[in-house]
Formats: sequence, C-alpha cells, structure tokens
Amino acid sequence: MKVAAGIDIGGTNIKYGLVDARGKILYRGRIKTRTFPLADDFADYFLHESGKIIAGLDGDYELGGIGIGSPNGNHITGCVEYAPNLHWKGRVELARIFTDKFGIKTYIDNDANAAALGELLFGNGRGMKNFVMLTLGTGLGSGIIVDGKLLRGSDGLGGEAGHTIVVENGRQCGCGRKGCLETYVSATALMTTYREITGKNLPARDISDNAAAGEPECFQALDQMADTLAKGLANLKSVLSPEAFIIAGGISAIGEAFLKPVRKYFDQYVLNIYTQQTKIMNSALEGADAAILGAASLGMDFDLE
Amino acid sequence: MKVAAGIDIGGTNIKYGLVDARGKILYRGRIKTRTFPLADDFADYFLHESGKIIAGLDGDYELGGIGIGSPNGNHITGCVEYAPNLHWKGRVELARIFTDKFGIKTYIDNDANAAALGELLFGNGRGMKNFVMLTLGTGLGSGIIVDGKLLRGSDGLGGEAGHTIVVENGRQCGCGRKGCLETYVSATALMTTYREITGKNLPARDISDNAAAGEPECFQALDQMADTLAKGLANLKSVLSPEAFIIAGGISAIGEAFLKPVRKYFDQYVLNIYTQQTKIMNSALEGADAAILGAASLGMDFDLE
Repeated sequence: MKVAAGIDIGGTNIKYGLVDARGKILYRGRIKTRTFPLADDFADYFLHESGKIIAGLDGDYELGGIGIGSPNGNHITGCVEYAPNLHWKGRVELARIFTDKFGIKTYIDNDANAAALGELLFGNGRGMKNFVMLTLGTGLGSGIIVDGKLLRGSDGLGGEAGHTIVVENGRQCGCGRKGCLETYVSATALMTTYREITGKNLPARDISDNAAAGEPECFQALDQMADTLAKGLANLKSVLSPEAFIIAGGISAIGEAFLKPVRKYFDQYVLNIYTQQTKIMNSALEGADAAILGAASLGMDFDLE
Repeated sequence: MKVAAGIDIGGTNIKYGLVDARGKILYRGRIKTRTFPLADDFADYFLHESGKIIAGLDGDYELGGIGIGSPNGNHITGCVEYAPNLHWKGRVELARIFTDKFGIKTYIDNDANAAALGELLFGNGRGMKNFVMLTLGTGLGSGIIVDGKLLRGSDGLGGEAGHTIVVENGRQCGCGRKGCLETYVSATALMTTYREITGKNLPARDISDNAAAGEPECFQALDQMADTLAKGLANLKSVLSPEAFIIAGGISAIGEAFLKPVRKYFDQYVLNIYTQQTKIMNSALEGADAAILGAASLGMDFDLE
C-alpha cells in the first residue's frame, strides 16, 4: 500500500510522519532543524531514514508521495523563499532537491495551505467544498478552499488573509504596512492588546486563562480580538462565501470562550444576504499530527486504495 | 451550429442576443422589462421570438443553451431573489420557467458574475486563470474567477467585494451597514465625494470630464475614489492573488485618467510579497454587447464547434 511522507519544517523542529490514504499516521518522527546545515543535508538524511522506517513497518508499504509544509513555501515555484525563521537562507529549491533524490514528485506549500488541505482530507473540512482555514499562532495564516481545491492564485501566493488591512493607520505589521488583521488577531496581538489596556505584559495563554476565569481586563483583550476577527471574517464571507471558518493554532486552544464571541460579532457584521448560518469552529486536527497530516496531504496525489 | 441565447435583465430594459461559440453576436434585441407583468410572460415571448429569429438567420443554427444575467440572480437556486429594481416581486424561479418552456437547461447568475464569465471567454480574461471583474456603475459588482472558474461559494453568493467594509463607521450603505467599498467606489459614490468636497451636486460623468480637464475639486473627488479602490484591491490581492483586476461599467469610461491613479495607489498599498505586476485594466467588452456576451457565457456548456 502506498503511503505519503508529510514533513513539517519549522525554525526549531522538523516533524515528519508516514501517512496512509485514510489519514492514519503509521510513524512519527522529529529532529532539530539546525542538525542540517543545508536543506540538501536534510533530504539525504530523510532518504536514508524513510527507507529504514518503511522497511520496519508491519505491512507491505511503499512511498507514494512526499509533501512538505514550510514557512514561505511556494507551491508553484517549489521553493522556500527567504524564510526569516529558517537558517536555510535565500531561495531554497526544496521540491526539486527532494524530487531528484527520491525520484518521487515532491510538493511544497506554506504551513496554512498545508493545514487547509489536511483539514479538507482528514478534518472538519471533509464533505465541504468551500471553507477558510485560519491558523492563529504567532501570526495569522490562512488557507482557502474553493470548490474543493486550494486557492493558490496566479502566483501561488493567494490566501494571505492575515495581511488584509482592517484598521486604517492601525498597528505596525511585520510586513511593513499598518493595520493588518494579524496585528489584531494572533497570540502576539492578544498580548499587545492586553498591554494597551493595562500597561502590563502577560503571556497569551495567561490572558486567555484569566479571561475564562472572569478577570475583566483579560476578558476585554480577548473580546476585542474576537470582535476584530469577526470583522475580518465578515469581509472574507462577502468575497468567498465559505461554508465554514475553521480555526487552528495556539489560539484555538481557548475554545468556546473565544469562538462564542466571534460568532456573536460575526452575526452582527456579516452582510444580510447570507442567511444560511456560517460555521465558525475549531480544527478537528490538533497538535503535531495536524502539521504532519497537512504536509502529507500535499503529496497525496496517488489514488485512495 | 449551436448558438446560446444571452439575456440581460435590467429594471428598465431586457437586452438579448444569439451568440455563437466564438462570441460572435448573430442577433441583438431589446424590449422594455415592464412589457411583461410576470417573468412567465417574458419566457413565452422569448420562446416565440427566439424561434423566429433563428429561423431567419442565414445558416443552419439551433439553440444550444440559454443564460440569463439578472440583478439578484442566484446560480445555485436558479432564482431571482427579491430584486429591488425589478417589478417581478419575491422569489422568481426564472431558470426553472425557461428550462420547462424551452426543454433546454437554463442558467442564471447575477450581472457581475455573468460579466466575469463573458470576460473569461471573450474579453481580456482570455488566457487568464485568476482575475477579478469589477462592474462600477450605480453600485460596485464583482465576479471572481479562480482557477479558470467562477467563484460561487457555498451558496452561490460569493463575489460581493462591493460589500467588504473599507472604512470603519464610514458611509451608509444600501445593505444597512456602514463603510462598504461600493459607498466609496461607484458613480453614486463619486457624486457623494464631490458633494462632500464642494457642497454641490454634479453628475458623475461631469465630475470625471472636469477632472480630466484639470478642475481641482473634480480631480480630488476622482483621486479619492482611485485611492479607496486601490485599498480594496490590495486587500483582495492578499486573499485571491489574481493576475488582473478588470473594470467595466460606467466608471470604466473614464479610462486611463482613473486607471493610472488606481495603479499608483495599489502599488503603494499592496503586500510586498506580490512582486509580479498585477494588471489593472478596463474590460475589452463594452456597452450592451458585454451584457449579452456575459449572459450567453452562462449558457455555453455545449462544446466549441
């Protein structure tokens, strides 16, 4: 039976797994990214390692596809392009390197697009043709599914909803502009909002925990984030009319205490022609498995068996 | 040879034509919408009329498809739903009425979606897989092409970019909310901006003519509209990453005097990862033909011959 390798590259760790066509993770691995001076070194390592792993699996498996999720991964060029948090500098031709070494066409994309595909194949997006995946962590990533396929746009750089401007002359964004959605909706943004309210610093997790326990200033910070996200989602609804917004990443751990106010404000802000309810929910895939399944989904162009 | 009927329904006139698979309009007609108390009456008229027209054409033609563009037309339900500017009230099952009478599957959509399809098949969108069509007239309509197909969303109501909010607590919109893009970018919006600047009323066409002639207040009004449109397009670029924005409708008659400042501001506002140039251009299809070709495109599911 064919399996896909799903590789999730991060600044600190590379997580990888072997996944069958039903989304069962047969093997999980993890290694420090800095182990490999060059991307080429990692490809050599993984060629050797994946061969060993597959030989050791209980059953007759072969590697049928490889998918890699990476910050600044571009599906169309197959490159990781100038990723600020990776020590592999410049423009890394990751898909070509893997395709050459393995003799298997390798697909690459950015983390949020991989997460959207994983959700489509194995998560809450199953059975949906149109939804938007939002990964709320340090920043705000998004992957957009239109008509059952990932929206890539003309250059592979579609789905950057975190960089839609929601506040004119708003907060400074890392992209150089002001007022981007991700400066108001992310773990980093939540801490900034809390600091604006109180003048104090607090980790995002403490803010959300305290908000759930009824601490007024933490509640206010979380409520403001829900309000701004709802404004962003209302605008995305007018453009894409998705069936659902699916949320993953660190912020999703807050759960209903965050989703409820997002739904309440969304209903206030959304255009009145959308009378069908839009689902706003958490991802069904959590933790490291989500990243592995998302990456593996990129490589799953073999038939389901 | 098969031809498609393209029917463009407006509050005042119904324009229709017979179009071959290469986009050649073989016949053009027009009749007052109020001639027909009910949509059913128009379908009866058109059944009789189209038969006569086809019999009179020089060549061996048959009707292979019917497409209807209408305000508030919904492709998925096949209905015109509560169109404020039509005297056909409530929810009109237009696609079903035509399909029953003609024995030919009839497709319906809103005007801007029809325009986008027309542009894709016969206009400046030929050869593009991802673009956004904007119809700037009384309001701002949009039709979005993703991966060579019209983006309809989960309920047929995708592509309402005119109702993305660009100014918090901004101008009152007909949709009941405030600050929608169409309240700043449309013929109506241009007149509002001019009135805000001068306290005087002037038709949109005079404002654009005077702006081109160098009158400072008219120039300022047009420049503000270009600036706000550019902000809206920059946000759409981050979500959809289209190759082009194609502009049609009354405002497009202004031409380069409007497109140039839009391009200038867009380059200032767009996220810096989009290094490939985004085309901002007028439609290649102008006037009544555009509406007929757009509507006919909806019905063209027969093979090119």
